[in-house]
Amino acid sequence: MTSAHTSRDIVLAFSGGLDTSFCVPYLKEQGWTVHTVFADTGGVDAEERAFIEQRAAELGVASHVTVDGGAAIWDGFVKPFVWAGEAYQGQYPLLVSDRYLIVDAALARAAELGTNAVAHGCTGMGNDQVRFDLAVKAQGEYRIVAPIREIQKEHTQTRAYEQAYLEERGFGVRAKQQAYTINENLLGLTMSGGEIDRWEAPGEGARGWCAPRAEWPEAPLLVKVRFEQGTAVALDGEMLPGAQILAKLNALFAPYGVGRGVYTGDTVIGLKGRIVYEAPGLISLLAAHRALEDAVLTKQQNRFKPEVARKWTELVYEGFFHDPLKADIEAFLASSQAKVTGDVVLETRGGRVDAVAVTSPHILNAKGATYAQSADWGVEEAEGFIKLFGMSSTLYAQVNR
Amino acid sequence: MTSAHTSRDIVLAFSGGLDTSFCVPYLKEQGWTVHTVFADTGGVDAEERAFIEQRAAELGVASHVTVDGGAAIWDGFVKPFVWAGEAYQGQYPLLVSDRYLIVDAALARAAELGTNAVAHGCTGMGNDQVRFDLAVKAQGEYRIVAPIREIQKEHTQTRAYEQAYLEERGFGVRAKQQAYTINENLLGLTMSGGEIDRWEAPGEGARGWCAPRAEWPEAPLLVKVRFEQGTAVALDGEMLPGAQILAKLNALFAPYGVGRGVYTGDTVIGLKGRIVYEAPGLISLLAAHRALEDAVLTKQQNRFKPEVARKWTELVYEGFFHDPLKADIEAFLASSQAKVTGDVVLETRGGRVDAVAVTSPHILNAKGATYAQSADWGVEEAEGFIKLFGMSSTLYAQVNR
Amino acid sequence: MTSAHTSRDIVLAFSGGLDTSFCVPYLKEQGWTVHTVFADTGGVDAEERAFIEQRAAELGVASHVTVDGGAAIWDGFVKPFVWAGEAYQGQYPLLVSDRYLIVDAALARAAELGTNAVAHGCTGMGNDQVRFDLAVKAQGEYRIVAPIREIQKEHTQTRAYEQAYLEERGFGVRAKQQAYTINENLLGLTMSGGEIDRWEAPGEGARGWCAPRAEWPEAPLLVKVRFEQGTAVALDGEMLPGAQILAKLNALFAPYGVGRGVYTGDTVIGLKGRIVYEAPGLISLLAAHRALEDAVLTKQQNRFKPEVARKWTELVYEGFFHDPLKADIEAFLASSQAKVTGDVVLETRGGRVDAVAVTSPHILNAKGATYAQSADWGVEEAEGFIKLFGMSSTLYAQVNR
Amino acid sequence: MTSAHTSRDIVLAFSGGLDTSFCVPYLKEQGWTVHTVFADTGGVDAEERAFIEQRAAELGVASHVTVDGGAAIWDGFVKPFVWAGEAYQGQYPLLVSDRYLIVDAALARAAELGTNAVAHGCTGMGNDQVRFDLAVKAQGEYRIVAPIREIQKEHTQTRAYEQAYLEERGFGVRAKQQAYTINENLLGLTMSGGEIDRWEAPGEGARGWCAPRAEWPEAPLLVKVRFEQGTAVALDGEMLPGAQILAKLNALFAPYGVGRGVYTGDTVIGLKGRIVYEAPGLISLLAAHRALEDAVLTKQQNRFKPEVARKWTELVYEGFFHDPLKADIEAFLASSQAKVTGDVVLETRGGRVDAVAVTSPHILNAKGATYAQSADWGVEEAEGFIKLFGMSSTLYAQVNR
Repeated sequence: MTSAHTSRDIVLAFSGGLDTSFCVPYLKEQGWTVHTVFADTGGVDAEERAFIEQRAAELGVASHVTVDGGAAIWDGFVKPFVWAGEAYQGQYPLLVSDRYLIVDAALARAAELGTNAVAHGCTGMGNDQVRFDLAVKAQGEYRIVAPIREIQKEHTQTRAYEQAYLEERGFGVRAKQQAYTINENLLGLTMSGGEIDRWEAPGEGARGWCAPRAEWPEAPLLVKVRFEQGTAVALDGEMLPGAQILAKLNALFAPYGVGRGVYTGDTVIGLKGRIVYEAPGLISLLAAHRALEDAVLTKQQNRFKPEVARKWTELVYEGFFHDPLKADIEAFLASSQAKVTGDVVLETRGGRVDAVAVTSPHILNAKGATYAQSADWGVEEAEGFIKLFGMSSTLYAQVNR
Repeated sequence: MTSAHTSRDIVLAFSGGLDTSFCVPYLKEQGWTVHTVFADTGGVDAEERAFIEQRAAELGVASHVTVDGGAAIWDGFVKPFVWAGEAYQGQYPLLVSDRYLIVDAALARAAELGTNAVAHGCTGMGNDQVRFDLAVKAQGEYRIVAPIREIQKEHTQTRAYEQAYLEERGFGVRAKQQAYTINENLLGLTMSGGEIDRWEAPGEGARGWCAPRAEWPEAPLLVKVRFEQGTAVALDGEMLPGAQILAKLNALFAPYGVGRGVYTGDTVIGLKGRIVYEAPGLISLLAAHRALEDAVLTKQQNRFKPEVARKWTELVYEGFFHDPLKADIEAFLASSQAKVTGDVVLETRGGRVDAVAVTSPHILNAKGATYAQSADWGVEEAEGFIKLFGMSSTLYAQVNR
Repeated sequence: MTSAHTSRDIVLAFSGGLDTSFCVPYLKEQGWTVHTVFADTGGVDAEERAFIEQRAAELGVASHVTVDGGAAIWDGFVKPFVWAGEAYQGQYPLLVSDRYLIVDAALARAAELGTNAVAHGCTGMGNDQVRFDLAVKAQGEYRIVAPIREIQKEHTQTRAYEQAYLEERGFGVRAKQQAYTINENLLGLTMSGGEIDRWEAPGEGARGWCAPRAEWPEAPLLVKVRFEQGTAVALDGEMLPGAQILAKLNALFAPYGVGRGVYTGDTVIGLKGRIVYEAPGLISLLAAHRALEDAVLTKQQNRFKPEVARKWTELVYEGFFHDPLKADIEAFLASSQAKVTGDVVLETRGGRVDAVAVTSPHILNAKGATYAQSADWGVEEAEGFIKLFGMSSTLYAQVNR
Repeated sequence: MTSAHTSRDIVLAFSGGLDTSFCVPYLKEQGWTVHTVFADTGGVDAEERAFIEQRAAELGVASHVTVDGGAAIWDGFVKPFVWAGEAYQGQYPLLVSDRYLIVDAALARAAELGTNAVAHGCTGMGNDQVRFDLAVKAQGEYRIVAPIREIQKEHTQTRAYEQAYLEERGFGVRAKQQAYTINENLLGLTMSGGEIDRWEAPGEGARGWCAPRAEWPEAPLLVKVRFEQGTAVALDGEMLPGAQILAKLNALFAPYGVGRGVYTGDTVIGLKGRIVYEAPGLISLLAAHRALEDAVLTKQQNRFKPEVARKWTELVYEGFFHDPLKADIEAFLASSQAKVTGDVVLETRGGRVDAVAVTSPHILNAKGATYAQSADWGVEEAEGFIKLFGMSSTLYAQVNR
């Protein structure tokens, strides 16, 4: 990578929106040869994909590539996240973790081009810049250029500035008046801004995939998910690649309004960020996986695994996707999934998803017995257990009362 | 309490059901003078209350008292549980914690009578015996008699044995054929047995308070809950005692099917226990409280408080209600609630409850700014933050790649 | 505090060294009226104290005050730190936590003067600036001036620059050529720099209070420490203020080389920092306190308290001295100390301190019995305990092997 | 294993002491064919080994095997324990973990003999029975016979009973009057009983390997330990098998009195157990390993790894050696050791061991820079870091003061 330092090629993670469109002429005017990469992580249809490609060409990039990010986001994020099973602050399913896979696509492209310069359109205000920058820095010595952050040093109305900048140069600007800031990908959709930022009830407009109550189907939905060693491999008996399983679950549960929430998170930089999120597929998958784990892991595992898993979630939220601690935790998680094989039936009747049935050869069921009914221990043994289990507390009472 | 050891008075925690009805003649035939206590923790109506009193009389107890347990269960359990905000294994809201308050009522009655003998109707198979026994042992040197556990040493079909025993002595047995084992109190309702034990989908009969989908009202429900220092004090502007708040929330949210779940838990004795639970009020209260905490606690508090709170929940689940560690954790929790004052609007449209709006003078809102829009730091500062925040991971990449 | 913003008075935390001496003329030339505060946290003798006072006068400060910080450092740091009982990264006893009490002294002086401007001599490279700045910011809206950090923006050889600056203005510079950077206060002493920074064995010169092996007394040292609710109140039967207890323990154990260590820490900004530390008194106090806690706390407390306590230590290390989470944890710690009352005999024969004897009415001793000899449970009870305690693991083996 | 249930062969873990000697005729009189296994985990010399063999023969066993347990104890316990790096309750290095390897040796012998019956000489009072029983149960469906526990059901003076029983049958009893209960193996030595149980200062007789102060050599001892991926592989440049490294470290550091301690532990069954332990080699190894980890792991790893590692230690202490959670944690630990390769110089001058120097290609050292001196970030970046790092706490102060 040493000689790369003099290259004038730069790889820009590109989405076709205002910010990354602005970056193209801005970087070119700084003397860069701009190569755009669009990592499709599921937020767009074929039409939008074509638009992005055309937009890049119109802005005069040296090259543009579109990368199918579905498999990468499943393997790199969804698999370990489902193993972990812990949402951020107990609620938020890390829906913008596609950033890390976008970084990977950009660095792979940079390697092809023999450059070590990468650019992104993140602002200097949010979490995304932390994730983008740290994911790059953790993979080698790269030069990171962040045009929006640069212009923010001198301009406060950056979007207006970007728009004028593009128009001056003869580039059109797609009129896209949005009430909310929206992020969308295979994982789900987040909305922020407006009344959401003010801790008020989200308006009816703050709605993405999840159907409103009036449209929920009458009939219940039942779906069987098969897991092998903790990873979903089939829906209703059909073996499918992971990204397709997630896409199908999104399509199945969104009409029932499942997986929607509003929450306030503590962002990386310490501010409060309030968002509405919708993740019908991911939330359903987590519910199914948890029901299976509850049945097949030992008490020691079910008690302690969440303590470790939460750290995984925190690391991913905060930008430490490539810290070796994340790999260490994934080794733990992978080991914990050895027996997490079986089928789970998910059911929704609207609003919520329940994991209503579990079958697995690994359920830790006392032979022929169930809890509180009959078992192969005697009453004296139960009494002995209680006595010794509570010994320390009992002694405390005897000594100190 | 020394002289009490020779007393023949015994206090029996009494519910009027088969097990505790059996205990009365059984204890009397062992030479005890039996005093029954019914701690009403919300699972019964006035009629059932009268039945219990009459049943005790019919069985020939020396005395019977009914204790209103609502305030005790609110102060002793609901308050700190909502502060903790952590369900057992991430799911179960500890619905049978009324046991601890029943023990307190029994011990208070024992003190009045000058005896140190107490009895309960728990079997030798479940969690309840652990909770009952440890809660007693942690409060002094008591003699605990557990008749059902005693007969289990010799009889496997204990319920049939109990029924025959009562009938032989001329006592009626209320015919109450139940498909499930049900526990019910102010906190909610649990169901187990049958297909639930077999990890199958709970049948339609496994339904308590929560209305089925077909009955959910069309109109959304909005309720404003006011918290003062972490404790709910008012509903829609009306100041109410805690137990009434919980009862009202149960009545409001149950018609929308809110707060129902099915989960597999690792019981104290290490078996798997699968149950259906319904706790519309408690689940709603937890959602409202969490939304307020997310907005007013610091990032450090929101990150770390759950680690401590989960231990509280585990201690209560496992019988350590009186271990001094629980008091230590409650000191932490009480301190954490200093600014948890404000109003939260809960909304349901069926199936799920959302905390859609929060107002509080303590929201940690940057002055006039919101996340990702504008704030009083510069872009250079953000860059500096990212650099130093990720320093160790970056050095790792530099040194080891 | 609104009108204070126009005040030109500034309070400088002053030690009389090169950095803070430089700050006085530098601040004056920026138009500030400089008031110095020296918070004596035990690192200096009377002579040095007089020198500091005289130095401030010579530099032309508007006022100088010396604050006795002994009681503040005991109450504000040592008490909760000993309750916590956890060194940073398992090793380092947070020896520069006096910074927080120095901040308090400076802010108290600022309040007296009606100003909200404070200054410190920290560089832009270390932990101390984080602690100083965050401790100030967490107590109100202050203006913080950091002259050394400011000149570092333009000068790399800051110490040479400071020296020249002072000499140009006719102020002498005390010649103090040091092989190591040393910090010293009541808590102990840290040394860094030179071969220590290079992960080599510290040279013989890297030695402060702790005597080298050749000078260790032959006779063992035995000292009895009395704790009341977790706080040391007496040495060998003599009731003493906390700061005197710590000073005496330093004097007693240093001749035996106790409490010295070398460790590598992960600093706030993510770099590795390697230091030699010497804290004979504090390390001895921690050993005594732990021995008492081990004997009087319940198993639940001894298991879980460290998890909470480590967070306290991390918060203090990282600058979060005033985050409300620290107060929450202190509420937990204070509660945990309710029965930590008793006497502990410390012994050293050189190199190490052992807590060899404990007496307390709160030791959780089974009546008349000791571990593994005799106790009031039967063998069947032990068998029952083992069976149910290991139930989940055993079922795992039965199901999965 | 089904047909094995009718076998009359039983494998007895045998040490030649009173308890296990008693077990031989006792088991034989119950109709068992007794096969003894002595797993040599380092506590005995060749003479004692021969004595044990002869003793077994004299007692009339059907077969006796001696197993060299050194490699098993290194691979099965020492390696992951050093990776974990956490003593029980922060102090005790789990010195009786050889029990688990003894179980393995017994089960291997049982497999050879085609039986599923195993016996041990543990009493019904301590931790060892929990470890022995749970380690067996977790490896299959075995019949466990515990003769000492059986006779304790009827006899309180079990040792006298055992002695008389043996003498009646013509077997000699080795007179071994001990002031303390002693356990000794490659890992170290524990002593309990007498004044130790009474929380008094251990007498001079409570001394095993560690030399008293008067005998400590004058000259310091320096030893270089080489680690590869977290495991010690060489001493002073000489590559050695692990068990030899530990034996050499014991021999080197014991003369300096290193690795001795007295502590009170919360035992599995909730009683307090106070012991003196001596583990000069293991404690030295832990110190060396920690110094290397502190230098080469990231801040995220150094902060979080102990949280996970402590659970490993707790599981091993409590008998859960074969719970799958232990394997999960070991996957985490193994991953964390990827870069823990390098040399550490240990030094003692008596009483204590210090890791005084570290060399490794993986030290996370900023290029050419050391902490607090110079580095490749600017002062503005430090200020930005502090501002955003403390944002949440600062907002708390602004909002709530």
